Formats: sequence, C-alpha cells, structure tokens
Amino acid sequence: MFSFELIKESKECKARLGKIHTNHGDIETPIFMPVGTKATVKAMTPEEMKELEAQIILGNTYHLYLRPGHELIKEAGGLHKFMNWDRPILTDSGGFQVFSLGNLRKIKEEGVEFRSHVDGSKHFLSPEKSMEIQNYLGSDIMMAFDECIPYPASREYVEQSIKRTTRWAKRCKEFHENTENQALFGIVQGGMYEDLRRESAKQITDIDFPGYAIGGLSVGEPRELMCEVMDYTVDLLPKDKPRYLMGVGSPDYLFEAVERGIDMADCVLPTRMARHGAFFTSRGQLTIKNAKYKRDFGPIDENCNCYTCRNYSRAYIRHLFNENEILGARLASIHNLFFLINLMKSIRISIKEDNFMNFKKEFYDNYGY
Amino acid sequence: MFSFELIKESKECKARLGKIHTNHGDIETPIFMPVGTKATVKAMTPEEMKELEAQIILGNTYHLYLRPGHELIKEAGGLHKFMNWDRPILTDSGGFQVFSLGNLRKIKEEGVEFRSHVDGSKHFLSPEKSMEIQNYLGSDIMMAFDECIPYPASREYVEQSIKRTTRWAKRCKEFHENTENQALFGIVQGGMYEDLRRESAKQITDIDFPGYAIGGLSVGEPRELMCEVMDYTVDLLPKDKPRYLMGVGSPDYLFEAVERGIDMADCVLPTRMARHGAFFTSRGQLTIKNAKYKRDFGPIDENCNCYTCRNYSRAYIRHLFNENEILGARLASIHNLFFLINLMKSIRISIKEDNFMNFKKEFYDNYGY
Repeated sequence: MFSFELIKESKECKARLGKIHTNHGDIETPIFMPVGTKATVKAMTPEEMKELEAQIILGNTYHLYLRPGHELIKEAGGLHKFMNWDRPILTDSGGFQVFSLGNLRKIKEEGVEFRSHVDGSKHFLSPEKSMEIQNYLGSDIMMAFDECIPYPASREYVEQSIKRTTRWAKRCKEFHENTENQALFGIVQGGMYEDLRRESAKQITDIDFPGYAIGGLSVGEPRELMCEVMDYTVDLLPKDKPRYLMGVGSPDYLFEAVERGIDMADCVLPTRMARHGAFFTSRGQLTIKNAKYKRDFGPIDENCNCYTCRNYSRAYIRHLFNENEILGARLASIHNLFFLINLMKSIRISIKEDNFMNFKKEFYDNYGY
Repeated sequence: MFSFELIKESKECKARLGKIHTNHGDIETPIFMPVGTKATVKAMTPEEMKELEAQIILGNTYHLYLRPGHELIKEAGGLHKFMNWDRPILTDSGGFQVFSLGNLRKIKEEGVEFRSHVDGSKHFLSPEKSMEIQNYLGSDIMMAFDECIPYPASREYVEQSIKRTTRWAKRCKEFHENTENQALFGIVQGGMYEDLRRESAKQITDIDFPGYAIGGLSVGEPRELMCEVMDYTVDLLPKDKPRYLMGVGSPDYLFEAVERGIDMADCVLPTRMARHGAFFTSRGQLTIKNAKYKRDFGPIDENCNCYTCRNYSRAYIRHLFNENEILGARLASIHNLFFLINLMKSIRISIKEDNFMNFKKEFYDNYGY
C-alpha cells in the first residue's frame, strides 16, 4: 500500500501540504528524513527517534549490501525488524555511494563495477541488483538506480548520462517485484542544464512511478543555482505524486526546497554535525568547543525545548566533547534532529496558515542567513 | 543527613541487608555502584540509569579536578546539577589515580606531587586538597585521601604506608567542613598482611567515620587471597556502619564480597567491557564480535529482561560493533549495567530469604565459575 494525498497548496508560493500513506504508517509532508546509514541513526535508539517525532528514516543500500549484507537482513526479517524500527523506511539505490568511489568504480551499460571502500573486494551493482537488495531490505520507499552527475559536468556527459539513467529506470521498474508493499521512486537528473532536466523529467515521468526525486543537486553548486534548477524542475513533475529532493538538510536549503514545492528531503548533516560538536540554534550555528562556552551554564538554545536543552548546560556539553564522552554525541544528535524535525513541523503549520514566507523571513533574520 | 540502618544479618554467612539514608535518597545494600568517572556514566543518560534502578553512582575526583575543574563544577551548582543526576553520588579521593601515575608522582608527608596524564602540568594533591575538591563537587559520600598500596608490596613499605594513611585520614576529618551533607568514609589499608590490616583498621576506626572502605584489594592478587584478607578485615569494622569494597565489579567478586559482609562495591568493569563488545550473561561472558554470532538472531541473554535483550538480536549488535556504531556501546552498557544491578537486587532478595548460599551456587554453576 502506498499513496500520496495532496492536502493544500500554498497561496504564497509553490509550497504544499500532503500526506504519504505506507504499510508502516503515514508521513506528513513536507518532511525531513533523518539518515540511518548502517541500520542505525547514529547515536540514537528507535524510541528516541519516535520521541523526536521522526516519521520516516533512510537506510543506505550500498553500506547495508556490503555489511552486514542484504541476505542477512532478509533472514532477520527485513530492515525494520533488524533495527527495531516499525515506522516507514526509505532506501536509496546505492548509486550515489558507488559513483562517489571515483577510480574504484567503472561504469558500464549493464551496471557499475566497483571495489568496496572497506576491504577492496570486487562487486557489481546494476539496476536489477539494486532492486534485489532493496526488496530484501523491505523498505517502504525504494529508489531507482541512477547516475548522480557531479558538478560541474559537461553538456555532452550529462546528455549521455541521463539517457542511461532512463534506461536503468525502466530496468528497475521491470525487475522490482514487491510493488504492493514497496513504492519505487524515479529520479530526474540533468545536471544544471534546463533542457536536459526537461528531457530527463519527461522520460522518467513517462515510465510512471508513484513518486519522483530530483537528483544531482546540492552537490557543490551555489545555492542560487540549486534554486534555479528547482524552479523549473519541480514544475515538470506531476502534482499528485510526492517530490523528493535528495541530500538536503541545512535549514536554508529546506526552506528553499519547500518554497519550490518539494515534499521530502534527507541529509546526514544534523547527526554528522552533532558528532563534531556543532549545533543548529535559532540564532545560527554554535560550535561548543569554543572557549567562550567554558563557564556558560545556559542551554544550547534558549528557544529550544528538546531533552538536551531542557536538562544540560553548554558548559557540561562542552566538557563532554572535550573528554570525547559518548553522551556528548548523543545530546548533540538529539538536539540537531529535534531542531530540523521541529523546523519542518513549524513549516507545515506556516503553510497551513498561509504564513510560510513570513516564517521564512523571520527564521533567516534570526539565523543570520 | 547520613545514616545507616542494618536491616538483617544472614543466618548462612556474614551477608547483611541494610539501607543508607542520604540527602539525595536511600540506597539499599548490598549495592553495586556504577562509575561515572568524568561526570557521566559512559554512554548513558541519567534517565537511563534510573530506569536501570541505579541508586548511587560514583564520580572521580582526580579526573574532575583536572577537567573541567572543581571550581567550575561548584559554579554550576555542584556535580549533581552539573550532570543532571539527583540521586546519591560517591566521590573517591583522587588517591588511587594519583598513585597509579607511577613515576609521574612523588609522595611526601604533605601530600602527592604529580603531573597530569592529560597535559603534563604540575599539581599537588593532599588530604586537605582532596577534601576541598570533594566539598566543591558536593557528593553525598566522600572518601579519605589514602595510599592504595600496590600488590605485591614489602612488609616494611606497608608498615610505613598505613601510618601515613592514618595521619592523612585524621587531616581529612579535620579539614572536611560540610559534614552535615557529606559523609566522609575512612579507608583501611594494610596490604595482604593480617596484623597490618588489624593495625590499620584499629587506627582508622578510632578516628570514627560514618562508614569504612577496604582499600588495596582487587589490585592483582589472586581471588583466594582477596577473600582471605576480607575474611579477617570485615570483622574489624563496626557492624553499625556501611562497609565498602573499592574497585570490585565482576559477578564472582561481588558474591564473595557480599558473603563476607560487604555492603557497597563499585567498578568500571560493566561499561568498559561493554565498549569492547563483551557481555555478562547468565551462562558466562559473551564476546559479540565472535563470528558464530553473525547470523544469530536470538538475544544476548535469553534470561535477561533488559531493553537490549528485549529488542535486539546478537546479529544486529554484532553488526553495530563491527561498524563502530555508538548504539553498540549503548546497548552493551545498558545490558551489562542491568545485569550487575539486577544481580545485586537478586542477592538482596536471597539474603532476605536466607537463600544466599544456594543462589550463589546456582549462579556459579550456570556462569561457569
């Protein structure tokens, strides 16, 4: 079971409210999806993720294929059971990680040959293999195996690449078996070229998927360029299907994406920043190791109501980071995830009240964007 | 406020049931006290410690003095407030860590000169300084500054050392100010020499403290020798005061100590083992990285009712450890702490029912001791 319900379109911009229905529960959109790369959202338990009101998390096909292996996870009863998470899961295709391997991989029409970043062992990932792995994992939303084009890329390269991505998308749809329980999303590529984005969108939507992602953005290009590409690409996607912007998780990118009609986004940013002692706050980013927080007995963010801010001081958290205590990474992860999940909740309310643009301006002013 | 209530003496052995009353709540004895070296029980939140029914935790004077500093913790409102723990705390004197520094320290009558293991800076710890630090930390139970004698040690050395420990104990009692809220325990030394233990016990109990510790055991000597020293040392301590065996935390040592009349014990063992993927189970120790657990979808311990065993498989936890995921250390810490805390709870019940010796035998048989 998978369906998307469009609840409201903003009067101010392209932002919209919706609800995705899956076997593992509903997802209110627009939504930020925390990443649980290796079958765990780093430093967090599933119960803590629920307390933060996370409605869906990601798993990474590439990592789980290599370790512990998708057969093992299938034996365990699927990814949900293996990691003790009974809400929706989205898995990527493995393509992004494999293409990021640089000279450790070789692209062919059949698929991509690569060497594991862990032990150098040889592997082959193809549209069919990616579907098999994701079928074994049992995610609620699967992604087609595509090529994420780096930035910058020549027009000639992008032209060839999007054609292959389309051929691969068709093979994915043909091979994917568990369509009843697992929705397969198509991915639009096209680099920073409007006509190629148009071509890719046409080809991918022609195949007909229950949802669409915009890939190949937030890969190093300036924010303005990303916004420009979104401006015309979102319009090429059907209104009655969810739209997913891959790899985006900073507060400003989330605002820009939602304003342009994006429904879903994911990023490792909140947990990765957390492990380095960097915090989102309503007044901008805060680096806790800074000496000025040594005797600061106030909370990380006085406007925040998360577990961390309700119970611990900057001085204490700074001490934990100086001593490499696990609790430091935990408290920071809780705060940063709460911040983004709560930000999206506030964004949904602002759309409902046709107050999104005001809310965005206010947030940017306080954050210092 | 501090008092000890002797509730019951076993008919089978010297084991006893009691209750310690402090400003931050009561402690049922015999009790295992988890260690929170640097103002955090590693990988755990205070709420999780409460869920495990931890009644008291330890803080380490040496570490907290060096970082973040006892003045800072005092400014924060004391250790309880700094780390968000409102149940009892016991702090050691710093002596054990300082004496363990080897050639980085120099013992004088006045105190011990040492260099920080962190940055090599010069420091001086004395009975008075240790009291000042512990007063600043605001622990419910403080320990006198003593010399923990290594094993083996010559008779001559031990003779000199216990005299100094007595002189230092007197200076501690004289300097300690906050006697109303912080109970200062004396420590009996004497190495493995019965007459010197007798002499030290006489001198330390003559000073009159609200509780007594047996120091200098579990420092590398065989278990039989430790038991032998306990056999005669416990009898030298008053019945109406709590007796604390320092640095003991393996299940067998806890049984042996309780059998001989010990009321309190502490150790970093459960959390340290946890971070290395080693688990206590009712059938002995389990090392999760062992290949045989790769496809083992059962719990760590089928007889365990902890959060970890209720929700996760050996295969999943093994995966977390192979990937160095923080959640692995968390789940292992929860399990090992639950195991020891719950073991002591069962031991208390067995004493109440005059079934301790049976319970011990059964446990040893299953554990493989």
